[in-house]
Amino acid sequence: MTRQSPGVDHQKADPDTVAIRWLGHALQLLDQRRLPVEEHWLTIEGAAGVAQAIRDMAVRGAPAIGISAAYGVALAARGANNKTWKREVRTAIDQLAASRPTAVNLFWALERMGGVLEQCQSRTDAVSRLADAAVTIHREDLAANVAMADLALDAMKLEKPCSVLTHCNTGALATGGYGTALGVVRKLHSEHLLKRVYADETRPWLQGARLTAWELARDGIPVTLNADGAAAAIMARGDVKWVIVGADRIAANGDVANKIGTYGLAVLARHHKVRFMVVAPSSTVDMSLESGRDIPIEERDGDEICQLGGVRVAPENTTAFNPVFDVTPADLIDLIVTERGVVHTPEMTGMHGLFG
Amino acid sequence: MTRQSPGVDHQKADPDTVAIRWLGHALQLLDQRRLPVEEHWLTIEGAAGVAQAIRDMAVRGAPAIGISAAYGVALAARGANNKTWKREVRTAIDQLAASRPTAVNLFWALERMGGVLEQCQSRTDAVSRLADAAVTIHREDLAANVAMADLALDAMKLEKPCSVLTHCNTGALATGGYGTALGVVRKLHSEHLLKRVYADETRPWLQGARLTAWELARDGIPVTLNADGAAAAIMARGDVKWVIVGADRIAANGDVANKIGTYGLAVLARHHKVRFMVVAPSSTVDMSLESGRDIPIEERDGDEICQLGGVRVAPENTTAFNPVFDVTPADLIDLIVTERGVVHTPEMTGMHGLFG
Repeated sequence: MTRQSPGVDHQKADPDTVAIRWLGHALQLLDQRRLPVEEHWLTIEGAAGVAQAIRDMAVRGAPAIGISAAYGVALAARGANNKTWKREVRTAIDQLAASRPTAVNLFWALERMGGVLEQCQSRTDAVSRLADAAVTIHREDLAANVAMADLALDAMKLEKPCSVLTHCNTGALATGGYGTALGVVRKLHSEHLLKRVYADETRPWLQGARLTAWELARDGIPVTLNADGAAAAIMARGDVKWVIVGADRIAANGDVANKIGTYGLAVLARHHKVRFMVVAPSSTVDMSLESGRDIPIEERDGDEICQLGGVRVAPENTTAFNPVFDVTPADLIDLIVTERGVVHTPEMTGMHGLFG
Repeated sequence: MTRQSPGVDHQKADPDTVAIRWLGHALQLLDQRRLPVEEHWLTIEGAAGVAQAIRDMAVRGAPAIGISAAYGVALAARGANNKTWKREVRTAIDQLAASRPTAVNLFWALERMGGVLEQCQSRTDAVSRLADAAVTIHREDLAANVAMADLALDAMKLEKPCSVLTHCNTGALATGGYGTALGVVRKLHSEHLLKRVYADETRPWLQGARLTAWELARDGIPVTLNADGAAAAIMARGDVKWVIVGADRIAANGDVANKIGTYGLAVLARHHKVRFMVVAPSSTVDMSLESGRDIPIEERDGDEICQLGGVRVAPENTTAFNPVFDVTPADLIDLIVTERGVVHTPEMTGMHGLFG
């Protein structure tokens, strides 16, 4: 039994901002829909609740979704019948897998948990081993983020501080802690190599405004929020040297699915000779997909665009197109940074070298 | 006296959507901050009220600002003292000129009204002549829009219907009626050459969601609303053949200041081999400025990004960068369409040919 869960040690990374807490008998998620107005924690005791939290975006960010789903599997074992536990946990895995389609970390985490499940001899054994496995996934993600920040800084070869631009939220709130792209931003800041980070507000969910600005301000990192449409004008000013983003799925050729708007930023970065970096743990890489064309792109309800915070911003019956992600082709990407290493000007060979 | 104002005949263009009404003794403006929730008309009887309506964006859109300011000058004459009327009207012109900095139509209209003022012999004379001059500016703008739509369609040389993408609101709400870029969209629709118009929601003011979607839906024109960040993904799909936008000021070399986000769209359009058209009356052209670098770009309060409809979306004390316009360099523009004619691949010579 893991009632006294080993937990996850955040002290070496970011002691303040954590979005996922494992209590051993329940999962706590910082409800990201309510930030920055309110810090409200959800306490979830079953896999169905975790699946709903993922679907409704109480938790979001590809790595955080994967970690939460892993804990969801552990909770399924706790709540299962002593006889039918294996079937029940398998059903929970299927349910969790159906929560969102694009981020591959979800499926990666569930596959790993499924592998552990098949080795378990009893429900009691499963309760213990699945919890341990989920905690390990969580810890490894945090460690990967810290490692990626180091690798990214080496690869950037900065001689003096610069400004960077980022999109969506890829920080402690989106991951097991510290962050992917925002982990690099944290590291730049701690090494006195960051002038300023421009944060796209990132419509329609405003993760940049609600989460990134909140998270960076807590750590005293200089952040300027901008409308997504201002990114081109900001790049034209010349002080932004890098666009740094996360990823929801990376195909075998280096194409990257990430939050809608990322692809446009990559085109703009190329036009302005700004370098473009993707930072994601290896769990985001899906070598089974040849290119980004094969990545399923989630479309969410158009009301996410037609309303905002309960305020109607478009007329009733407006047709809205609301793809949640887009695909940035590898040839617009300068660096893909994972904890296993850095792929420069990604293409099939470089990707296979690290992930093949 | 023009108590029985000649008014402006909208019947040939768009009988339904009008944002500016001249009552002879007062100006009525459809308060665009309240759309689409409510159709509320402001009745304004003095120049100070018009200046405030422009500053606060109750009326917006470069041509509509110019027209409203012209009516403001006419109202100043009505409210003036019989002895000091000329000085009072000149003061009103200065006050109106200070309302917003970027759209040159404002200064163009005020200069024209100032020229009429200097010819007036008495306050009574000024009341009549300034009202007539404002109505003429209004009428000419409407006629220019209809003419531009014809010129644009000729220049597009479409052989079959296509989809287009637009930004901000450039329709009847932004002009004397019919619209600039949206005038072209109306014309494409009436000629059965429009499959669909994608409307960027256009943060931070959401003119696309609140105004463009509202205005086009009233006319039965197929419109799909999208987050600004989705424009690149939409262009990558291939059915958008043209990006069509308005302008707030066009410099002598063909550089165009327009709503923030326009420049990024132009870069994306070039990358996707989508053509890029700017539609604006000649009153938007400022041949006194050599290039877009000389155009003053308004920055508004960061709270326009940090709040939305009274809902706080970013933490307190967030730094936000909120430029209202950006500059698209002429070399990213395929066509500038004015009522005087079309400039292809604009540069200094072509611009001087029409406007020198």
